[in-house]
Amino acid sequence: MSPYATPTAPRPPLRVALAGIGVVGGGVVRLLEANRALIARRAGRPIEIVAVSARDRHKDRGVDLSRYRWEDDMDALVAAGDVDVVVEMIGGADGSALTLARRALGAGKALVTANKAMIAHHGIDLARIAEEKDTPLKYEAAVAGGIPVIKAIREGASANEIARVYGILNGTCNYILTQMERNGASFADALAAAQAEGYAEADPSFDVDGIDAAHKLSILAALCFGTRLDIGAVTADGIRGLIAADIREAEALGHRVRLIGMAERDSAGNGGALYQHVQPCLVPADHPLAYVPGALNAVVAEGNFVGRLFFEGAGAGAGPTASAIVADIIDIARDEYGPAFAMPVDALDAAPAADAGARVGKHYVRLIVEDRIGVLAEIAAAMRDAGVSIESLIQRGSEDGDDGVVIVLVTHEGPASAIHAALAILAGSDHVVGAPMLMPILAL
Amino acid sequence: MSPYATPTAPRPPLRVALAGIGVVGGGVVRLLEANRALIARRAGRPIEIVAVSARDRHKDRGVDLSRYRWEDDMDALVAAGDVDVVVEMIGGADGSALTLARRALGAGKALVTANKAMIAHHGIDLARIAEEKDTPLKYEAAVAGGIPVIKAIREGASANEIARVYGILNGTCNYILTQMERNGASFADALAAAQAEGYAEADPSFDVDGIDAAHKLSILAALCFGTRLDIGAVTADGIRGLIAADIREAEALGHRVRLIGMAERDSAGNGGALYQHVQPCLVPADHPLAYVPGALNAVVAEGNFVGRLFFEGAGAGAGPTASAIVADIIDIARDEYGPAFAMPVDALDAAPAADAGARVGKHYVRLIVEDRIGVLAEIAAAMRDAGVSIESLIQRGSEDGDDGVVIVLVTHEGPASAIHAALAILAGSDHVVGAPMLMPILAL
Repeated sequence: MSPYATPTAPRPPLRVALAGIGVVGGGVVRLLEANRALIARRAGRPIEIVAVSARDRHKDRGVDLSRYRWEDDMDALVAAGDVDVVVEMIGGADGSALTLARRALGAGKALVTANKAMIAHHGIDLARIAEEKDTPLKYEAAVAGGIPVIKAIREGASANEIARVYGILNGTCNYILTQMERNGASFADALAAAQAEGYAEADPSFDVDGIDAAHKLSILAALCFGTRLDIGAVTADGIRGLIAADIREAEALGHRVRLIGMAERDSAGNGGALYQHVQPCLVPADHPLAYVPGALNAVVAEGNFVGRLFFEGAGAGAGPTASAIVADIIDIARDEYGPAFAMPVDALDAAPAADAGARVGKHYVRLIVEDRIGVLAEIAAAMRDAGVSIESLIQRGSEDGDDGVVIVLVTHEGPASAIHAALAILAGSDHVVGAPMLMPILAL
Repeated sequence: MSPYATPTAPRPPLRVALAGIGVVGGGVVRLLEANRALIARRAGRPIEIVAVSARDRHKDRGVDLSRYRWEDDMDALVAAGDVDVVVEMIGGADGSALTLARRALGAGKALVTANKAMIAHHGIDLARIAEEKDTPLKYEAAVAGGIPVIKAIREGASANEIARVYGILNGTCNYILTQMERNGASFADALAAAQAEGYAEADPSFDVDGIDAAHKLSILAALCFGTRLDIGAVTADGIRGLIAADIREAEALGHRVRLIGMAERDSAGNGGALYQHVQPCLVPADHPLAYVPGALNAVVAEGNFVGRLFFEGAGAGAGPTASAIVADIIDIARDEYGPAFAMPVDALDAAPAADAGARVGKHYVRLIVEDRIGVLAEIAAAMRDAGVSIESLIQRGSEDGDDGVVIVLVTHEGPASAIHAALAILAGSDHVVGAPMLMPILAL
């Protein structure tokens, strides 16, 4: 089919089935209805919802689904002869989402999904089925919501060797960190505010422990480095350990605290080993990630010719997620798509996990200690014995309502392993109270 | 051809000819050589330079062109049977660039260009030839250099009705404004610094008068609004009229001055009329455009479902421009492309130019006046008589070495035409010195 099909020779509508009509599914229905004419012009053909399926037919979703065929059984979407594209919005890495995805692709239908957990865990398997069946698998909405970052990296930055890709991949955490920044709030209070505002779930683990960001990071890494997606190689530290003093001290140091997912090639080579880690970091005030407010997401990709690309937008919500899902559908309608991970699965490399301890950089270390003679000497000795070189050290009376004293130190460039060793020594001290906080300082 | 072609069934190389080997052309050669293996993996086939052509064969370009066939006559690239893609890097809206583009497309070859002037002036004609010949016309590098913003809007935001698109589209101007911001420099001194650093040409008109930004804006507008590209409908005011006091006063008001190209639908409807204007604006400190430093570019697109998308990166230079050009070539190698302006030329609307005077917003007005009794009353009366409502007014002794007094006022929301009327009244005053500066304040 020529991409130049003119309106006088219209192509047949692309027929879409929606599986799972929650907040995002409702957004997709609204978008396809509201922008119907515009989308038909841009896609070169109408995009029509022909069937929908969800668990409860009678739930009020705020959208009128009566004009679409209802299927109680999702398998009927796969079996239907009038469905070209199945949109999976059920969620969850496994279970019925995965079953549907496998069956839809297996039946040669295009699959569009917003399901980061499923892609992170089963993306390679699904891509293989898509390849075998020569049908599209697309997942723009799985990473950074409405920001077209999958496309920007897969296609926009395709000429570049990517040195590292990183960003703010979880809006809930960024909302919490922004609250702590603005109000001096504790983590617990900021989390409660995020829950009250609907930015955090009742059980926030998935977000605040970095699991959601890890899923997204693994997908970005596979695309940037041409590696076989490996969620098992991604490690994550969340933001639960942060206290108000961390935010304040970071600010005093000219930085802001952000939960950063970063994937980077091992600088020592090591057979293409890949570092993939989610953790709170100190971001310098002159880096654009320092200005990403509230629940927004942002991604940075650094290419060897293009330099630093920065993308920011809404990382979640019905509208932005629907925007990404429908962009995928339009690509399919235009026949502008290719392999899910930019190249065939067999062309992807297996990347060993890099040794995170060997990563060199400056670090922020915060300890809470008892206010006693000799504690500072103990800390300094532990750092010295572990080979950690200290650039600056600040001791302040705690304002966080406990009896301890906050000590913040910034190291010179050095391997993370040395700091871990120093903290292991200090873990045996009677004078260190609670868990220390260790954050890398993002290098520009 | 299936997009899933595996490495065991390789596709033939895509054969590229380069026309015009200056800074950008050298970058393309270097990129295609440095990232050759990576590009072949991502594109699913090798990309090979087969021929090059430029004015002077013997000029030292810092790249070894001896391995490629040299053609003195660019027409030979069009005639060659072994050329799939012609990359036009000659520059200029007309002349040999346009001749080559027309002939290459007319011969059914793919055309990739970084030439914003040519696309702005002849994009529709060229797109029509591409359609007739069913061959790709791509121009990612023509707007915002390395930022894949054409792709992000054409495809990433394709599900959205775009309310407005705007951004920092000229790195030279942004470099000058950043210099003025940091050093309190005059426009003339900042321009001289930009020239010394190679960010500005000896004749800077094309950049500082907003012409370059206007070209880029017209391209973005056509893509965002599905309109027939019309460079004649774009108006531009450059940054020559800015004085150090403007930067200072903007800062005091919590804003930064940026040269913004903006395209927006007429809010009153008016048959889809489009506002397209380049001018210095006050950007609020909590808008990401306020943080775009130096020679970077940034583009904002506001969609009705995705909300605000923000893209930042290098807007010029050999590496970033080559990155965008080669991304286009990779899209062609992957067969992932469609109509140049996202839909066939005949499907694009003709958009009348909106009445710029009717645009409503807050404005910054700066006057330099003689230090005399009654001047303030004269200004206030002119504003009143023109129906301009003043929100704040500041009068300061000038620090710019002349004898005048600087008066800055910020208006309430109102039409630009009223302020123009007020300034027309004041133009007749003996006490107003030199040209006033009028800048809209960007609404969030």
